[in-house]
Order: sequence, then C-alpha cells, then structure tokens
Amino acid sequence: MELLKNLKWRYATKKFDTTKKVSSDDLEKLKEAVQLSVSSYGLQLYKVLIIENIEIREQLKPVSWNQSQITDSSHLFVFCNYIDVSDNAIDDFIKQTAEIRGLDLERLNGYGDFIKTKLAEKSQEEKTSWLKSQIYIALGNLLNACAELKIDACPMEGFEPEAYNKILNLEAQGLNAVVIAPVGYRHQEDHTIGAKKVRKPFNLLFQEI
Amino acid sequence: MELLKNLKWRYATKKFDTTKKVSSDDLEKLKEAVQLSVSSYGLQLYKVLIIENIEIREQLKPVSWNQSQITDSSHLFVFCNYIDVSDNAIDDFIKQTAEIRGLDLERLNGYGDFIKTKLAEKSQEEKTSWLKSQIYIALGNLLNACAELKIDACPMEGFEPEAYNKILNLEAQGLNAVVIAPVGYRHQEDHTIGAKKVRKPFNLLFQEI
Repeated sequence: MELLKNLKWRYATKKFDTTKKVSSDDLEKLKEAVQLSVSSYGLQLYKVLIIENIEIREQLKPVSWNQSQITDSSHLFVFCNYIDVSDNAIDDFIKQTAEIRGLDLERLNGYGDFIKTKLAEKSQEEKTSWLKSQIYIALGNLLNACAELKIDACPMEGFEPEAYNKILNLEAQGLNAVVIAPVGYRHQEDHTIGAKKVRKPFNLLFQEI
Repeated sequence: MELLKNLKWRYATKKFDTTKKVSSDDLEKLKEAVQLSVSSYGLQLYKVLIIENIEIREQLKPVSWNQSQITDSSHLFVFCNYIDVSDNAIDDFIKQTAEIRGLDLERLNGYGDFIKTKLAEKSQEEKTSWLKSQIYIALGNLLNACAELKIDACPMEGFEPEAYNKILNLEAQGLNAVVIAPVGYRHQEDHTIGAKKVRKPFNLLFQEI
C-alpha cells in the first residue's frame, strides 16, 4: 500500500543537504496536496508561506531554537491560521461554492448562516484551537506528498510564533504562525537516518467496540 | 501521483450503503496508517475508538445532529485526546524509545525532562489545543488510507463531545472525544457523489517568498 510505504519511508529530517533544491514542478504538487486537504466546512481558513529567500530564513533561525533545518532545507513551509473568522470569509466561501458547483446563491445562503451561527457559539479560545487543528491535516498531506516524491521534511513546533509573526509581517495580514516544515533532501550524514520508528502498539492506540 | 489521485477521489460521504462492511484486513491497514502518523515529540497522546456495535451507534446518533452516517456506515472512528499529560506518559515514551532503538535509558532521560519542561510552559488551554491538533494529522491519514483502499469516509465535528464522553465512558479513561469519522462504502443514491470540490486557488492559499 503506497501510503503505508511512504509513511514508513519518511522521518523527521534533522540534517538537510544544502546543495539540493526541490524543483518547481514538485513544489506545484506539494501545493496541490495542501490545497486538496479537507477542512471544517471546507473553509480553509489558513495561508501557507513557502520561503526560499535565505536572508529571511537566516532571520527566522534564531527564533526557531537555532535549528539548522530552517536554513539548510530547500524551502520552509510556514502554516498560518487567520486570527479571526469574518462573516466575509464565510460569504466568499458560499459564493465560491455556488460558482464552482453552478448552484443558486440564494439556496446556499442558509448554509452560510448556519456556519456563522455555529462559529458564533465558540469562545475565542475554542475558535483559535479549531482554526489551528485544521492546519494539521494540511501539514500531514504536505508530509505525505513529500514522501511520495522522495522529498524529505521535518514538521516543527519548536519556534517562536510571535517572532515569526513580526519578521514575516503576518499580523498585518490577520495571520498567525502555527506550525512549520522545512522540506528538501536529507544529508547522508544525518545521524537519524534509519532510526527505528517509535509508535504505540495497536492495543494502546485503539479500542474496538 | 497516488496521493493527489486519492485526494481527488474521496469526498465527505453523506449517505452510506448499509449492506457493505469494511473487511478486517482493510481495518488493519487503516489502523496502521493512523499508527504511523507523526505527532508532536512522537508522543501520540490520543486513542481511537473503532465502533462497529450498532446499539452504541444508535445511542450516539441523536447526539451527532442525527446524521445518518453514524449508523449507516460500516465502522465509526472516534478520535479522543488524553485530557491531561502526565509525567508517566512522557516516561513511558522515553522507555519505549530506548527499547525500540536499543539506546541507553539514562542517555534519553534528559530529552524526557526537556519535553516535560516544554509542556509545563503551556497553559491548560494551550495544552488542550495542542493535544487536539495532533489528532487531525491522524484523521487525515485515516482519510488518505481509506481513499487508497476505495473506502469512503466522512470527517465530522458535528457532534456533542460531552455526550460522547458520557455514552462511551471516556472520562473514566481520561479521554475526550475530539473528531469522528464514519467509514464504509458510499450509497449510489448519495446526492453529493460527483459534486465538484471547492478549494481556494493557489494565489489565496500560498505566498512564495
């Protein structure tokens, strides 16, 4: 099974080969995998920065626990959630749905109102948590797409979101950095290549009823 | 590309065929895809209930917005996070890592302490949000595994977690229901089969720097 094979191939790459770059063709495929990810109501309330610029990555490194992957990788993916959900964002989604599916906008407005009502029931903290969670589905698909293309990646929460928000001018766009993933190609001297995967056994992870 | 093909094939299934069951062979593969999912520090602080029992699913349906997928699907996956992270959970993970990788436990204890310190810096709300986020990576892999096996699924947040916790006796296990996914096979009368996917265009979803 391809997915299982790919999940077993990948690992959180600690040392990247600085001489190898992900091709623009492959980058388009990675973007498509992120784009096709499911999200709550289909809203996709996030934005993904893909940073190749080395000067900016040099600025990000010290606020990323000085981890070498930030600058040694080919590209750095920064997943950001929208800090707030405006009614406009829901309206845009409903409009886009009507257009793509050739449906009457009037018929879909009730669904838009339903989403707005449901979101209004969430506290700000619940909303933030909900927005962040959706991003992790897209992150997972980035990792899977990388693995299928034999591109290495390292999902990372070890960075300072506030510093990222400042350096990347995210707040002005209403964005907040949530999780990052450098992608590229493993350095053959990465000492973690081939380390056995540590995963909970089925009996601790699952309960069948 | 297999992943992109599978992501395009799948859709949030609204109506399941009640006569078709997922085989136990396929269920093992779905479990393996969940098991191989990445998680923060590799801790996998969640448990997944796989419910086939129809009486229990009948009880869950009214607290799931009465959605028919709860009972019409073959199996219902319920993803739950551990409500709290005990030092024991970290110690168990460190011990398991030492065993699987044949490393000296003493050498890994520093890493365990590092994880404990980092988690202690999080507020309870941040911790809950962080625990929930990891689950969405596993949910995504369940959906991807289903798609590769031509099994249908529907990720759902539309249910009452407190009621699930009660009916499934989750709190006694220190668990909390986060997100669910009925899996099975689409009913040919599902009116959403073939609906065009609604996804944000690249220029709204990505920013290349």
